[in-house]
Amino acid sequence: MNPLFTARTSVEQVEEGLFLAPKFDCNGLIPVVTTDFNTGEVLMHAYMNEEALVKTIETGEAHYYSRSRQQLWHKGQSSGLVQKVAQLTIDDDQDCLWMQVIIAGSGASCHVGYRSCFYRRIPTGKSAVSSQQPLQLTFTETEKTFDPKAVYGDTPNPTQL
Amino acid sequence: MNPLFTARTSVEQVEEGLFLAPKFDCNGLIPVVTTDFNTGEVLMHAYMNEEALVKTIETGEAHYYSRSRQQLWHKGQSSGLVQKVAQLTIDDDQDCLWMQVIIAGSGASCHVGYRSCFYRRIPTGKSAVSSQQPLQLTFTETEKTFDPKAVYGDTPNPTQL
Repeated sequence: MNPLFTARTSVEQVEEGLFLAPKFDCNGLIPVVTTDFNTGEVLMHAYMNEEALVKTIETGEAHYYSRSRQQLWHKGQSSGLVQKVAQLTIDDDQDCLWMQVIIAGSGASCHVGYRSCFYRRIPTGKSAVSSQQPLQLTFTETEKTFDPKAVYGDTPNPTQL
Repeated sequence: MNPLFTARTSVEQVEEGLFLAPKFDCNGLIPVVTTDFNTGEVLMHAYMNEEALVKTIETGEAHYYSRSRQQLWHKGQSSGLVQKVAQLTIDDDQDCLWMQVIIAGSGASCHVGYRSCFYRRIPTGKSAVSSQQPLQLTFTETEKTFDPKAVYGDTPNPTQL
């Protein structure tokens, strides 16, 4: 185990303890919620492996593990949209991270070109489901903040069907 | 497939389309980031299966799938801390949800008794790692908002080692 981490020995120690004892899943990953430190907006949901977490802690810049490319991913390396870590917290059972970041440049985080990856709203309520027809989304962002083709060129799209 | 969902046929349709085409993982789950609609604080990170997502959409109240209890989980059923959905969005590749909620009662969401599940900060920067000693956490919440024993009694603790 990495010397920066502590072994998980009891529920009380994990939930109320003062030492970092992260739980990586069966693929060696821990989910990360990334929000904009200034606006509170959820920008993205991604994963870190042990190496990415240690790099993030050490450098103060967001590093993830890319599941599509299967490699360490220093966010912003291609696009310039580096994420500076303002605050990093871990949850009660230490199997999820919340990272508040400050972003260089246009402030975008989404490979599709939007500011946040969460740019479509799902309708809720009885009226939304009463007809049992496919649910229609509403865009919450209407303008892209950058042109993905210009930034990423021919890099394969990470979205999997 | 549920009639409310649409099949995933192309990257463009998933990323830019107007219909809900959620991707559930190999366990039939989709991760959900839950934030407080009023404060923007990240409250919890959990999972929904298809049934939980449909129930959430239909009722406007957060339903999750409890991985520890392996069953549908209407949040607040034991504690009274029901989460009313103010806005539900899905991300670019439609494999993650962001749910903004308004909470009844004390506004707490964490089974340990804190407002947010994310109540401990991880130190960052070269000075944090230079000694290669176990990283020490800092509590960002100091007072519990309720007594978990009084609310949950002898219900098994969901934290897994």
